[in-house]
Amino acid sequence: MIEDITVRYLETFKDRKPVDPILIEGLPGIGQVGKLVADYMIHMLGAEKIGEIHSIYFPPQVILDEKGLARLARNELFLYPSEKRDIIFLVGDHQSTSNEGHYLLSDCYCEIAEELNVKRIYTLGGFGVGHLVDEPRVLGAVNRPDLRDEVESSGVTFNRDDSGSGIIGAAGLILGLSAQRGIDAICLMGETSGYLVDPMSAANVLAILSKLIDVPVDPTKLNDRAAEMEKAIESMVEGEKGKEEELSYIG
Amino acid sequence: MIEDITVRYLETFKDRKPVDPILIEGLPGIGQVGKLVADYMIHMLGAEKIGEIHSIYFPPQVILDEKGLARLARNELFLYPSEKRDIIFLVGDHQSTSNEGHYLLSDCYCEIAEELNVKRIYTLGGFGVGHLVDEPRVLGAVNRPDLRDEVESSGVTFNRDDSGSGIIGAAGLILGLSAQRGIDAICLMGETSGYLVDPMSAANVLAILSKLIDVPVDPTKLNDRAAEMEKAIESMVEGEKGKEEELSYIG
Amino acid sequence: MIEDITVRYLETFKDRKPVDPILIEGLPGIGQVGKLVADYMIHMLGAEKIGEIHSIYFPPQVILDEKGLARLARNELFLYPSEKRDIIFLVGDHQSTSNEGHYLLSDCYCEIAEELNVKRIYTLGGFGVGHLVDEPRVLGAVNRPDLRDEVESSGVTFNRDDSGSGIIGAAGLILGLSAQRGIDAICLMGETSGYLVDPMSAANVLAILSKLIDVPVDPTKLNDRAAEMEKAIESMVEGEKGKEEELSYIG
Amino acid sequence: MIEDITVRYLETFKDRKPVDPILIEGLPGIGQVGKLVADYMIHMLGAEKIGEIHSIYFPPQVILDEKGLARLARNELFLYPSEKRDIIFLVGDHQSTSNEGHYLLSDCYCEIAEELNVKRIYTLGGFGVGHLVDEPRVLGAVNRPDLRDEVESSGVTFNRDDSGSGIIGAAGLILGLSAQRGIDAICLMGETSGYLVDPMSAANVLAILSKLIDVPVDPTKLNDRAAEMEKAIESMVEGEKGKEEELSYIG
Repeated sequence: MIEDITVRYLETFKDRKPVDPILIEGLPGIGQVGKLVADYMIHMLGAEKIGEIHSIYFPPQVILDEKGLARLARNELFLYPSEKRDIIFLVGDHQSTSNEGHYLLSDCYCEIAEELNVKRIYTLGGFGVGHLVDEPRVLGAVNRPDLRDEVESSGVTFNRDDSGSGIIGAAGLILGLSAQRGIDAICLMGETSGYLVDPMSAANVLAILSKLIDVPVDPTKLNDRAAEMEKAIESMVEGEKGKEEELSYIG
Repeated sequence: MIEDITVRYLETFKDRKPVDPILIEGLPGIGQVGKLVADYMIHMLGAEKIGEIHSIYFPPQVILDEKGLARLARNELFLYPSEKRDIIFLVGDHQSTSNEGHYLLSDCYCEIAEELNVKRIYTLGGFGVGHLVDEPRVLGAVNRPDLRDEVESSGVTFNRDDSGSGIIGAAGLILGLSAQRGIDAICLMGETSGYLVDPMSAANVLAILSKLIDVPVDPTKLNDRAAEMEKAIESMVEGEKGKEEELSYIG
Repeated sequence: MIEDITVRYLETFKDRKPVDPILIEGLPGIGQVGKLVADYMIHMLGAEKIGEIHSIYFPPQVILDEKGLARLARNELFLYPSEKRDIIFLVGDHQSTSNEGHYLLSDCYCEIAEELNVKRIYTLGGFGVGHLVDEPRVLGAVNRPDLRDEVESSGVTFNRDDSGSGIIGAAGLILGLSAQRGIDAICLMGETSGYLVDPMSAANVLAILSKLIDVPVDPTKLNDRAAEMEKAIESMVEGEKGKEEELSYIG
Repeated sequence: MIEDITVRYLETFKDRKPVDPILIEGLPGIGQVGKLVADYMIHMLGAEKIGEIHSIYFPPQVILDEKGLARLARNELFLYPSEKRDIIFLVGDHQSTSNEGHYLLSDCYCEIAEELNVKRIYTLGGFGVGHLVDEPRVLGAVNRPDLRDEVESSGVTFNRDDSGSGIIGAAGLILGLSAQRGIDAICLMGETSGYLVDPMSAANVLAILSKLIDVPVDPTKLNDRAAEMEKAIESMVEGEKGKEEELSYIG
């Protein structure tokens, strides 16, 4: 019988003990900001895959690669040994399709963190503002008051206009659930329109996170993608303005 | 593994036995009437927090305070020792997101009541009528016929025009489920439009509840908020009338 | 902890063994046809309540009587000792709110039938046709081929134009699930528009069922209600026609 | 108590051991392509029914045959002993109504395959393209890279334009879940508009599958049905064109 959630570590990892590890979560979400950052870091740092998570709470589908090879929707764990500590990445295709599944999966992520002796978790996400943002900030949230100063001094903003609001999905729940296990957690959210995949916002989050964990990551390729995106949006906006001007001539 | 519902009492409460306690439930709902009343009483009486409830049936999100501190969506228990008896408050951010969860959470609330030896429960809510109400009444429901006289004599109306209708969510289910445990329960519902947070309606419920449990609560601040709200609505209505008049000039 | 489904028999019933019993299910559904028939029979025959069913799959609400007394949404069991055999009625406020709950509740109904030694079940329902029907037929379905002749000779139609279609909810599932327990089951469906509570359709089902179980039930009051309904609809239809004529004058 | 999923083998099958069996899944889906192919093969080959699957994850309804006999929604297993090996068919009325049910049912199908010692599974489906297709191709997916060559050489296309996309439901999940049990699986998808039941697409899939499993199946009747369908669509398209021309005359 299938388990509701299955965690499998690769054989190559099974006897290893991560050194003073931290966990970085970058699952799909608003503007794909968290996913962009974590996938980019894994790629640029050459992190090594160490495990997989499958669950009946993911969408009921397989994903095909370009060669027609099918695999279940999944989350993946990667490991990168930085100079000071091991960094574990949690990334994947999907989050839960049900409310209850969100809790159960997020608690599973925290259980993994506890098992691997993780003492700090960074969760990454987008913060949807509903309009294009010229200079997107990185907003923060923490699960212990003492964490705030350090994060704030790295350039993260804690002054949100909408106090009392929440963070939906794994990026939020992990903060709440890890606190119950005594694990520190910090959420970094890049401001983003919420309508588009947003590499600009991701680049900002990457810059901050890189500083916080003291792991340099060359941002060039992400910045390039952000620049392309910016151009594309500009030309779209110009197009719209053009239409408006035409209309005002007519009117 | 995370439990579907977790009840945690604070250490400061663990060995205490509430004296002849009653339970007042004021969770979010129509017009936030019940929540307004219970939160206001907790604030004004200086009730002491004694416990927390978490559940996978709550929305899958964390809530941020103004300092960016994240916590899981939750329900909370507070205790206030009145002269005659201990009063336990059940308040919180959310109710269940699923039908089944509503039953399971409400039964959990009744189990808490039974454990704490509660003999009577008041559930608070709004009764949505779909239009602004000038003098909102407080409607009542009971889970044992003998309870009605006492409640009615405090000014609560039992003559609803829509007999056969129901009360949805915790405020209702607690009445039904507590009866099975031999606990008396009374529901007080303030009439309200259903469109707006309604401190006017809440003030009426507070007045009645205060009388019923014989605990004076200074209603000034709630009345002030109600007065402000009333003014705001009046000016909105005036504004609408103004527009209509303008339109009739044009026409 | 609350059970997903709870069946409680009244003390007055607990030691009794129904004599050669049949079960009649009349839960809410299309046109409320099944509910109208079963509730009417219980009322006219003076059947005695013997049990209650509660479930987390019912809508999460309590129902108020005209005196403000609240009770959980429920299903009820009634017993009527006819000359030839005991008749058990299954009626109630609601069916399941979830797909899975429909299966679990219907299987519970069949388990009750098996425990009480029921050898035949009648499930009652409406068959929605999407338009007003002048002379609504009673359509039938069975869970064993041999049952058809008897039912057909009582005036039930088995020639549906839409073979391959289904019966949704308890009235259907009970047929399928009781077969697995070796219990015969017959579904009687009154044709109905599907838009309105339909006492006309119910009166037709009552007439057939009464014949099939050999229990006379005075149909006068149901016929009266049907006649009133017919008048109301006629005047509505006339009203519509009137409007159309007016419009054609204008045009 | 009802099980979430029940698998029942017929008595006639219980002691038999399929010889070197493969499994062909053809459950309802896009364009009913998979269902058309598998049902047609069962019919033409005269395969023998060996088992049934019921589940609370299927829609909560019974299905009526033309004689008014009701049966639960179900999946069925059939067996055909071809010259080289036994072929087991998995067909049925429905797939799961819930996301979690899709996983649990698909895992159950894989468990059946493992129990029956199946070494290869073919899942059949439609691939919706959103418009009518003149010469629908058959697209493929595999759960092990080595399987591709054989499938490709039978005429299946693996060059999809939308790499990264997925296959939803049983046809997809079986690929992912069977891999975990060491069973090879191949998905054949006929291109189809997605709006209509598509015997043309099914005929193409049948031709390929027939070649792959080396079991000749006379395609005449399916081709006839496809030809009828093609004519019907053509006349519909002509009709539309006619209307357009009329309109252009008016304009």
